[in-house]
Amino acid sequence: MSGAKGNLAVGQSGGPTVAINSSLCGVIQEARSHDEIGEIYGMVHGIEGLLKDRFIDLRRHPVEVIEGVRKTPSAALGTARYKVTPDDYERILEVLKLRNIRYIHYIGGNDSADTSLRLRKLASDAGYELHVIAVPKTVDNDLCVTDHCPGYPSAARFVTMAIRDTGRDTEAMGHYGPLKLLEIMGRNAGWLTAAAALAREEEGDAPHLVYLPERPVSIEQLVEDVKNCYEERGRVVIAMSEGAQEAPGKTFGEDYAPVDMDAFGHRMKGGVGEFVVALLRDRLGIKVRMDKPNYLQRSMMICASPVDLEEAYRVGREAVREAAAGRMEGMITLVRDPGPGYHCSLGVAALEEIANKEKKLPAEFMNEAGNYPTEAFLSYARPLIGGPLPPYTRLSKQFV
Amino acid sequence: MSGAKGNLAVGQSGGPTVAINSSLCGVIQEARSHDEIGEIYGMVHGIEGLLKDRFIDLRRHPVEVIEGVRKTPSAALGTARYKVTPDDYERILEVLKLRNIRYIHYIGGNDSADTSLRLRKLASDAGYELHVIAVPKTVDNDLCVTDHCPGYPSAARFVTMAIRDTGRDTEAMGHYGPLKLLEIMGRNAGWLTAAAALAREEEGDAPHLVYLPERPVSIEQLVEDVKNCYEERGRVVIAMSEGAQEAPGKTFGEDYAPVDMDAFGHRMKGGVGEFVVALLRDRLGIKVRMDKPNYLQRSMMICASPVDLEEAYRVGREAVREAAAGRMEGMITLVRDPGPGYHCSLGVAALEEIANKEKKLPAEFMNEAGNYPTEAFLSYARPLIGGPLPPYTRLSKQFV
Repeated sequence: MSGAKGNLAVGQSGGPTVAINSSLCGVIQEARSHDEIGEIYGMVHGIEGLLKDRFIDLRRHPVEVIEGVRKTPSAALGTARYKVTPDDYERILEVLKLRNIRYIHYIGGNDSADTSLRLRKLASDAGYELHVIAVPKTVDNDLCVTDHCPGYPSAARFVTMAIRDTGRDTEAMGHYGPLKLLEIMGRNAGWLTAAAALAREEEGDAPHLVYLPERPVSIEQLVEDVKNCYEERGRVVIAMSEGAQEAPGKTFGEDYAPVDMDAFGHRMKGGVGEFVVALLRDRLGIKVRMDKPNYLQRSMMICASPVDLEEAYRVGREAVREAAAGRMEGMITLVRDPGPGYHCSLGVAALEEIANKEKKLPAEFMNEAGNYPTEAFLSYARPLIGGPLPPYTRLSKQFV
Repeated sequence: MSGAKGNLAVGQSGGPTVAINSSLCGVIQEARSHDEIGEIYGMVHGIEGLLKDRFIDLRRHPVEVIEGVRKTPSAALGTARYKVTPDDYERILEVLKLRNIRYIHYIGGNDSADTSLRLRKLASDAGYELHVIAVPKTVDNDLCVTDHCPGYPSAARFVTMAIRDTGRDTEAMGHYGPLKLLEIMGRNAGWLTAAAALAREEEGDAPHLVYLPERPVSIEQLVEDVKNCYEERGRVVIAMSEGAQEAPGKTFGEDYAPVDMDAFGHRMKGGVGEFVVALLRDRLGIKVRMDKPNYLQRSMMICASPVDLEEAYRVGREAVREAAAGRMEGMITLVRDPGPGYHCSLGVAALEEIANKEKKLPAEFMNEAGNYPTEAFLSYARPLIGGPLPPYTRLSKQFV
């Protein structure tokens, strides 16, 4: 294109979410309105696509296809978990020059920000002009600087709905199934697990106990918590992070995983959920039912938060605007306005502040006992899932 | 109430669903319009509530609460899995007389139909006039006579959405996560697992393989199927019933469950899903990711089929109409009209035809290889989930 300064490449990285295609759509639609941007290339499977010179031409896709992608979960370009090393730098530079790529927007989390940072540095070292503005995305919500990460609110909405509905199921089962555990994504950060608490509308509602990696709780304490809760109300619904810990750095059940326990002579370690189910059955003599929705947490479009989809789109657009305006590097951030009401403005953080760093749930977001999020967390998270859930009701508990 | 012939008791039984409260609401709303029906009692936790004389007064609940219950998942009255025995008959008759209950509507599956049948017989033997018209409900869809069971279409819609969305997730992951297994409810009947196939819209879409109890497949065949599919397209999404079999009557992995494998010296048997994950890793050397949504399949209201909610409401109303019109026993059935278009009329089956019987997926609903439902099944199931899912799209796969 005449007048264009160079071409743009956009890629998706890490775990897909229901919102990452909204960001992709934001990048494409904004790019189309800038004369300095020539071709719009989609990196197929992220940085791997760049290394292999595998791009698709996003400018040639009809507007309605791009709009359709916005309503489609998962990563339309394909994603990657590849970590670039200095051995790749020469090849990367070769492809950047071959395709005259001057703008790169990599949509992802901390690892992807590391990739962006490396791209920026190798280009800078080679004297090759390259704008690298990353777009945040992760259901883990563990990126620094930004108020929250696109992808998180929708996964949080899934978790909220799941615990609310499976909680009603447990309530109806009475003594036929009084204990339930929902295992929730998040190996190192408990943001998603904490969101389970958004499901509670009335005293006694699920979840009753919430455990996550940042706040270790001893096995004895966990059993005691569940026992007390069970004796008090006859049922317990537990939201448990897949990375919940019994001591700092020590995931529940790590020591207990037997060796060679699977059918084929492999060491097979159950997750935290499986361990806690076995633990509680052993100590309390009660079967615990478990839901482990796993990848459904990040992929079920029907649970998407409208706030999330909109913000994901905005950060995508903003990344292109910043690059077109001359910024050389950074990641777009969400900056929560003081209120009243919920609104986020957009900002930019240096890639150095994001790459390979993790934002854990702050201490004040969990109660002293380490078994439930605080009101401070709920105030933070409530607006993100996009308004109240459809109302449910209960019959009176008064007997004739 | 003057002029009333007697009171009505309604109960919910077995596993909750998102539609069972619609049936409850149908029973209540219809009962309110019949002069011969006096009080409307809700049995708290099904037959247990009757045995314990624990009822709530549903006539005294405001109309908007009953309407609210209709939009609430799970069983608002509480459910039960109690099997009545002759030892209970005297007590049951005592409570029926005490409360002057002349109409019983028990909402549930085959076991609940057995309870209804026993109630009917004990009343008949005692010369106590009692109308027992059961209301069908089960996500397993395994009741005889009826075209399908309320509760099934919504769970089927959940499964369809889940496999479609987790399938997109798998597609985006490429070689970072090419194998996925969704474990689906149904120990003896594969109706719910088969519904996964409704997710496929284009050639190559998930699911790629579907296994269920009615159609055993040897371990060698399963491995071969997955291997072939993986070699062909680089990814495989498997829908697997929790009761899938390797030989008639033999669930996958039954023989392989090691003894004393859990942390506490208990025999702990993983489910079919865990076994197949270990099997495929062993034989193909590839990690298989698993989603096990378990109780979410029957409880997530956001996935409810509108067709299901409406039909569940209709069968509830019809049960009361039949009883008020003088019918002494039976279960309401859905009778599919010949078409064109989808519509069900209502019928009644004798309780004997339903109680303790199971309707398995017929042979013609699975392909010859036993690894995918046929078009005949899809035609049967497609209208139930309530219209097409929100459209998704894909980018072109043509490289620049």
